[in-house]
Amino acid sequence: MLISFEGIDGSGKSTQARLLHDYLSEAGQNPLMVREPGGTDLSEKIRSLLLNEDVQVEPMAELLLFSAARAQLCREKIRPALNEGRIVICDRFYDSSTAYQGAGRDVAVEDVDIDWLNSLHQRATGGLVPDRTYLVEVDAGTALARRNRSDAGPDRMEGASDGFYERVAAAYDRLARQEPDRFLRLDGTASISAIQARVQSDVNRLLAAARTEG
Amino acid sequence: MLISFEGIDGSGKSTQARLLHDYLSEAGQNPLMVREPGGTDLSEKIRSLLLNEDVQVEPMAELLLFSAARAQLCREKIRPALNEGRIVICDRFYDSSTAYQGAGRDVAVEDVDIDWLNSLHQRATGGLVPDRTYLVEVDAGTALARRNRSDAGPDRMEGASDGFYERVAAAYDRLARQEPDRFLRLDGTASISAIQARVQSDVNRLLAAARTEG
Repeated sequence: MLISFEGIDGSGKSTQARLLHDYLSEAGQNPLMVREPGGTDLSEKIRSLLLNEDVQVEPMAELLLFSAARAQLCREKIRPALNEGRIVICDRFYDSSTAYQGAGRDVAVEDVDIDWLNSLHQRATGGLVPDRTYLVEVDAGTALARRNRSDAGPDRMEGASDGFYERVAAAYDRLARQEPDRFLRLDGTASISAIQARVQSDVNRLLAAARTEG
Repeated sequence: MLISFEGIDGSGKSTQARLLHDYLSEAGQNPLMVREPGGTDLSEKIRSLLLNEDVQVEPMAELLLFSAARAQLCREKIRPALNEGRIVICDRFYDSSTAYQGAGRDVAVEDVDIDWLNSLHQRATGGLVPDRTYLVEVDAGTALARRNRSDAGPDRMEGASDGFYERVAAAYDRLARQEPDRFLRLDGTASISAIQARVQSDVNRLLAAARTEG
């Protein structure tokens, strides 16, 4: 089973991904947790390129770098883990590229329509699609306030200009409407434990359904 | 005018690209010469990733990394130079990805057909197509002997397995047949000065034609 967590920076999705990982580990499931971009030697090197404020990165190059990191992660880590029957939890997956690089950075102005973006995701992942995607939703203002409270300074990705996170949130909203069976929307302003409980009960239901099918 | 040089490693294409650059410089043309992958801060960092033997790079990740480097190079350097009316000489361009990553590394086995590869090139370059592509052709054995005579040790790209360069050369042959107006094939076993003279006379003819059209 492949599970992804999505949302704008400061939504709390990484916290929820980690909590689900801990919960499944304690249940003896041996889940694999990965973050994007990252999770392999190559992908972490690509991550440092992307987070380096001193390097000029055009939106199209950014999209292709994220896709390259994803291609390596899928082949080196995710696919092998799935083949072993492990549950894989992704802190971000290809929906992030659609929302961030596609909508946020307006790569679309360069004639990258959503169909081509999907064809890129399909090739980069080798056809992997999450069985469930948790979209942790908060408004851009709340997310900003949370990021400002955290210790980490702004990096290149987070230092995006006004209106950026509104466009990303709107893109996530469109994706969730297009694939209502895959996406589960979570109110990111609820308490951490309330969101966690919702995720756990949904995962348990999916696992039970998978056992019945199997 | 955008000119690219293509061929397998050891074909002599980089020498010819440099000689054309020198020739046009002496003629007062102020040409821009770039190499792939490279030519920008980001692209050179991607180049070091690709040439690092210690990092595992899957064929699909390799294809997307070359494309990311190209996307940056086209937007940061090539397009601005063309807009200034300069001649741009590329030591490798997207045909290298079709031949090396597409055919050589068999990314095609992962359902990356030539149509999709072309759609990737079109997006990565922002629609740039060379006005002329010089394909310097030598057989794989000659190229290997030349590379072995050079001082540089084998890197990850050049250390490719048996049959790799034969597949790459065959892919170049197909490309040249498909676009006979864009490609000019050059016998790479001829002397450096003979090839150089052929390139210079062709470029002068293209420049004269462009002046007439303008």
